[in-house]
Amino acid sequence: MLQSSEIREIRKDFPFLELSTKEKPLVYLDSAATTQKPRQVIEAMNRYYSYENGGPHRGAHRLSMAATEVYEGAREAVKNFIGANSVEEIVFTRNATEGLNLLAYCWGLENLKEGDEIVLSIMEHHANLVTWQYVAEKTGAKLVYLYIDENKEIPKKEIEEKITAKTKLLAITQSSNVLGTMPDVKTMIAYLRKVSPDAKAVVDGAQAAPHMPVDVKDLDCDFYVFSGHKMLAAMGAGVLYGKLDNLNAMKPYMYGGDMIEYVYEDHSTFLKAPGRFEAGTQDVGAASSLPVAIDYLNAIGLDKIHEYESYLVDYAYDAMSQMDDITILSRPTNPRGGLITFNFKDVHPHDVASILDSKGIAIRSGHHCAQPLHRSFGIHFSCRASFAVYNTIEEVDYFIKNLDEVRRLMGLGTR
Amino acid sequence: MLQSSEIREIRKDFPFLELSTKEKPLVYLDSAATTQKPRQVIEAMNRYYSYENGGPHRGAHRLSMAATEVYEGAREAVKNFIGANSVEEIVFTRNATEGLNLLAYCWGLENLKEGDEIVLSIMEHHANLVTWQYVAEKTGAKLVYLYIDENKEIPKKEIEEKITAKTKLLAITQSSNVLGTMPDVKTMIAYLRKVSPDAKAVVDGAQAAPHMPVDVKDLDCDFYVFSGHKMLAAMGAGVLYGKLDNLNAMKPYMYGGDMIEYVYEDHSTFLKAPGRFEAGTQDVGAASSLPVAIDYLNAIGLDKIHEYESYLVDYAYDAMSQMDDITILSRPTNPRGGLITFNFKDVHPHDVASILDSKGIAIRSGHHCAQPLHRSFGIHFSCRASFAVYNTIEEVDYFIKNLDEVRRLMGLGTR
Repeated sequence: MLQSSEIREIRKDFPFLELSTKEKPLVYLDSAATTQKPRQVIEAMNRYYSYENGGPHRGAHRLSMAATEVYEGAREAVKNFIGANSVEEIVFTRNATEGLNLLAYCWGLENLKEGDEIVLSIMEHHANLVTWQYVAEKTGAKLVYLYIDENKEIPKKEIEEKITAKTKLLAITQSSNVLGTMPDVKTMIAYLRKVSPDAKAVVDGAQAAPHMPVDVKDLDCDFYVFSGHKMLAAMGAGVLYGKLDNLNAMKPYMYGGDMIEYVYEDHSTFLKAPGRFEAGTQDVGAASSLPVAIDYLNAIGLDKIHEYESYLVDYAYDAMSQMDDITILSRPTNPRGGLITFNFKDVHPHDVASILDSKGIAIRSGHHCAQPLHRSFGIHFSCRASFAVYNTIEEVDYFIKNLDEVRRLMGLGTR
Repeated sequence: MLQSSEIREIRKDFPFLELSTKEKPLVYLDSAATTQKPRQVIEAMNRYYSYENGGPHRGAHRLSMAATEVYEGAREAVKNFIGANSVEEIVFTRNATEGLNLLAYCWGLENLKEGDEIVLSIMEHHANLVTWQYVAEKTGAKLVYLYIDENKEIPKKEIEEKITAKTKLLAITQSSNVLGTMPDVKTMIAYLRKVSPDAKAVVDGAQAAPHMPVDVKDLDCDFYVFSGHKMLAAMGAGVLYGKLDNLNAMKPYMYGGDMIEYVYEDHSTFLKAPGRFEAGTQDVGAASSLPVAIDYLNAIGLDKIHEYESYLVDYAYDAMSQMDDITILSRPTNPRGGLITFNFKDVHPHDVASILDSKGIAIRSGHHCAQPLHRSFGIHFSCRASFAVYNTIEEVDYFIKNLDEVRRLMGLGTR
């Protein structure tokens, strides 16, 4: 496993830790919202905007060519990162949300109809849920939810009952941003193929890609989305992967420059993927951060990152599950994502987060873009501490210790 | 007018100029594609990603709050920059193209029908043309083009014949990216209000906002779009302005986190503008560059910038209009945007651009995302040199001088 000496070296790469002082520490436990960035990533963007900036794809001059190289180099890096067949299968988006919306508009609205079913899980992020509500409303297709058991897993029975010949789309997270549950997406997709061969499978990898090795060919998904900003890269650097035939069979998303072949006054023809889906000047600055972030993660090793984050979660889980006044919502056993979601008895999650913030600990409170899941537990909000490779076991200790501070300030009495 | 000493000071702020050496100069004349960035802008993004990065709007901790402050501060700066009534009228997008597509999906498809007419000009960028082709195809509305005269203007007669009670949308550029023509958008909109009071007017300000003062209230447009990356800010920092009632009457665009009020398993309710249109984690890094770019432009003065760029264009125009083997496509008289578009007799524009690139001059060749306009001239491609405040008169001279190099290498003989 990653040693604390290695983690110390990693931490030197993260400028945000300079904000942490002895008097006022900064323990960042909100990486599931967005990760912090190593200086290598920040420097890549710096370099891009200082010396490589131009309109990509469009110019015969050196800066346009430099920008094109940066942009298409990022596509190559992403292709390798997730094991896609070709760079044409990689579409850049703002974020995972945009990838899912692109699929909703360009595949869902065009291919679904009354009688069709969209199977998704109750633990989907709103991005992979409200999007399909819209498609269902417009097309008459029906949403079918997979519910979870007390172990925060989707039971096999649930899958086999609900994925049927009527299923035309399976939209499923690879790692829940609230529960840390990591459904066996590969097996689900294999089952889908068996019972509904023409159905498509879209995997929301926003919380998976940053934390474990991903191989889209091994999963055999039709589409896969994730966000660079949750894996050390810049905001604005999202990715939609699609099997090439799927992408080229879809209508364009946004219309404009760089996605057309020929434009006449009354009609136009369009490029194939990925150009078809990338209208207007793309965010090369954000893209420039992706290969560096990917190199950074690969140099450590995604397997090791997952193992280390699991160690942090296990440690927090063991300590917190001893506390009578805390209810843990997230998954009790491995495998699980690098987060723990919980509630204090009789304390509003926002108060917990505010008190911890006063001690320099950044956790998130709210519905975490998963209101239906929270409602299924009979609650509205929760607290979430989420970990990344730059967190230390000492930070987790400090976090645990300060749960007592919450107790003290809220008049619950310390344990 | 801006003095050359002032321009010299300005140039010190632009790191890309370090690429320019005595042996191999770099004369960047492609700012209409994307501008270069001053170090203040690069440093703002640096600072954001180093010390202010977090998931905006969602957290009760210091970094989430810092990110929210950066993001909403950018909105306030943009509001002031274009004279909007309130920050709620400012929606962040990837680029101007996305703003237009948002309008196409959320206003156009929902409000237009057979019998309605969309009036646009033949000089629209594909972003403000192909987008409406899609809406026309889906709704049965008709595209009506405003054509231009030999002075590269839209004649009054054309406007008064084509804008009628049937017009439900006027989609018009405030400054052509090929011709430099700056239609009198304000008068056109006033005329539209008279003959078709319920019609909407959308102004494509991508080439205007960076180069002249813009006041959306004075224009009385319903919607206005532009791109930060064409005005010294980062890529990924686009803006859609809309009158608040218009925005709140529109359906959402992308669905997901941060744009909802309540999500149930079978339906959801949505935030008002601008949140309704900003799903998922937004690009705070890109947004962080906008206030700095706006401050930079304002410190010089948009009036002065327009005046200075006009001086550069006038100078180039006068010199190039003496050359028999060059046809100038762009507007012959002021007011005009900071660019000159031209073709060499018997030389392909790509060859012109490549030869100039070998001399360190970056111009653009192609259709500039305006194929219908080029086709109306009986051509496919052209060369474009576009200027920004960091260009000097000496650079324009060097560009003019090197047109002879094109002649020499293409065997045309020098003049």
